[in-house]
Amino acid sequence: FEESSVQHDAGDKGQFRHFMMKEIFEQPTSISNTLEGRLTNDSVVVESFGNKAPELLTKVKSVQIIACGTSYHAAMVAKYWIEAMVQIPCQVEIASEYRYRKSVVVPDSLFISISQSGETADTLAALRLAKEQGFMASLTICNVPGSSLVRESDMAFMTRAGAEIGVASTKAFTTQLTGLLMLATAMAQSKQTLPAEEIASIVDQLRQIPSEINEALAMDKTIEDISEEFTEKEHTLFLGRGEQYPIAMEGALKLKEISYIHAEAYAAGELKHGPLALIDQDMPIVVVAPNNDLVEKLKSNMEEVRARGGQLYVFADKESEINENDGIKIIHCSAKSHYTAPIIFTVPLQLLSYHVAVIRGTDVDQPRNLAKSVTVE
Amino acid sequence: FEESSVQHDAGDKGQFRHFMMKEIFEQPTSISNTLEGRLTNDSVVVESFGNKAPELLTKVKSVQIIACGTSYHAAMVAKYWIEAMVQIPCQVEIASEYRYRKSVVVPDSLFISISQSGETADTLAALRLAKEQGFMASLTICNVPGSSLVRESDMAFMTRAGAEIGVASTKAFTTQLTGLLMLATAMAQSKQTLPAEEIASIVDQLRQIPSEINEALAMDKTIEDISEEFTEKEHTLFLGRGEQYPIAMEGALKLKEISYIHAEAYAAGELKHGPLALIDQDMPIVVVAPNNDLVEKLKSNMEEVRARGGQLYVFADKESEINENDGIKIIHCSAKSHYTAPIIFTVPLQLLSYHVAVIRGTDVDQPRNLAKSVTVE
Repeated sequence: FEESSVQHDAGDKGQFRHFMMKEIFEQPTSISNTLEGRLTNDSVVVESFGNKAPELLTKVKSVQIIACGTSYHAAMVAKYWIEAMVQIPCQVEIASEYRYRKSVVVPDSLFISISQSGETADTLAALRLAKEQGFMASLTICNVPGSSLVRESDMAFMTRAGAEIGVASTKAFTTQLTGLLMLATAMAQSKQTLPAEEIASIVDQLRQIPSEINEALAMDKTIEDISEEFTEKEHTLFLGRGEQYPIAMEGALKLKEISYIHAEAYAAGELKHGPLALIDQDMPIVVVAPNNDLVEKLKSNMEEVRARGGQLYVFADKESEINENDGIKIIHCSAKSHYTAPIIFTVPLQLLSYHVAVIRGTDVDQPRNLAKSVTVE
Repeated sequence: FEESSVQHDAGDKGQFRHFMMKEIFEQPTSISNTLEGRLTNDSVVVESFGNKAPELLTKVKSVQIIACGTSYHAAMVAKYWIEAMVQIPCQVEIASEYRYRKSVVVPDSLFISISQSGETADTLAALRLAKEQGFMASLTICNVPGSSLVRESDMAFMTRAGAEIGVASTKAFTTQLTGLLMLATAMAQSKQTLPAEEIASIVDQLRQIPSEINEALAMDKTIEDISEEFTEKEHTLFLGRGEQYPIAMEGALKLKEISYIHAEAYAAGELKHGPLALIDQDMPIVVVAPNNDLVEKLKSNMEEVRARGGQLYVFADKESEINENDGIKIIHCSAKSHYTAPIIFTVPLQLLSYHVAVIRGTDVDQPRNLAKSVTVE
């Protein structure tokens, strides 16, 4: 498998106070590295997923993705992409659940594992189980060359994020998403489930991710100012719809991990089915609302929250025409394409959790009770 | 479709202070009604799912279940049952997510909707979408005869829970689970994926649910005493594994809905991937730990929590041999069978949320911001 040639000085925080912030700001570079040599003018180089990929990916009729924690959120986004772009069913499951239940493998299924370290105990055990279950092939999306998942999978996509020191994953996550969008595109190419112009357009959008992330990083000061308003809170709700629902989950997980604020994410449409009971002036609500088909739906969800005294913080595209108002604070954030929006909108949520944690005075790079890689059950 | 012949005096709380408590205690009767006339000595009467069920259920090669809120938790349990017992893939999704994304329908797929009212807006919209998508057939698990979901589905299973007045669903949920276990059993019969003795044994276990729930209800005073310890808390974590993971989710939702405590559920194996950072002496942890293969795994999860000062409340089978200890309180609860355990273990969690809410003085039957049926988006 191809290894990253990029040098990272893992011991040096450079201008940054914490490794996490350094790693957040490294994302344009990490993603450039992830893309490097893997795109032609109008297609994804299928061999990026391993030498056997051109032969194997064409045959895949069903996908099962297994992961834990942040990598599980990347898997959830991939389900939206794969089912829409490749038109094959994609199941996603937490590794510790998958490995201990009786599941079903349909013919010509691809098993995908996602893990930064490639050593996550439950994910590795799930891969070993999958090999006995009759999957057609296995692919790992992984950041560490030579790790167990890479060695034991038929195919591997190396994310080339470089060493990630902060316990809370940032650049590993966005490079995983980049790899998964490339995978869905490569499969759509092989199976001709999207027109060639659409594939070429996605390739162009992939190339623009680093510059789009740079724009998102430029919001750092704005987000730092807003983060002051979270520091006295003990709860936060994150809402999203579609591909942004897993991004809301990832935003909540980041805040939980490093600031110890109890943050929880919901698919926005589930709000009326329970969590609305929690809403009062002590529960800020973060909404991830890019300008897509679902913005109108989100607007009605937001109105419900506002009517109940909840303070809303809405990360929204300028074109989404959501108006700032009593109880609604808008943070403009732009994603040029529907496909890359989940990757771009991750960045302001990373910055938010970082600044809240710094003000609260927690150990950002080494939050209490957590280890970087969960290599035991 | 067959309607319930049981009379419920919906306006009368009888000996109970709240409808919710009355409905929790009605569960043995509700489930007896749900089972009535639908079991033979050694099998499930397949026609319980509608006249077309004997013909259609044999053909099913894949299942997609759609629901919202509490019904979604029932759907999640069903996935464990269907994949293990019927050996066909089962996907489960929140209605508001499913209806707005491009999904994939494989040949011979059954679309199942679950809703107490049969009028849940997103679930109904998902059914209407499903009819255009080429599903082989549709089935609804529903409590209201003549409702939109019942009228518009090819097959219907009426849960016969009787009128449910409390906004927080209790007897509707356990009758849904009963219906779904019957469905998995009926499909396993039709497709001969379980031996006849196993089917007969499950039928026997189904018949014992009402008496098992009566035993669980006898724990009411014990649980009332424990609930005092939650009333000053603002957070709770619920943990479960396997079929008990969705039950932990349902327990967290109940507590959230009626006590306004921010309760969140995690698959126990995910603890180290983030939520462990939240654990301190202010965050009680509720664990659903029946005596099955996963108890040993749960024990190690519990040890991690205890080591970090978290107070554990463990609902465990006597045979699970978990010892009460500093920071570990055991509430013995017994389920005679692996299959019915998720239904039985739901009951003490319902009682816990009820008593916590009563002590906190909330409006138990009509919690703030919530409506009984979400008939608008």
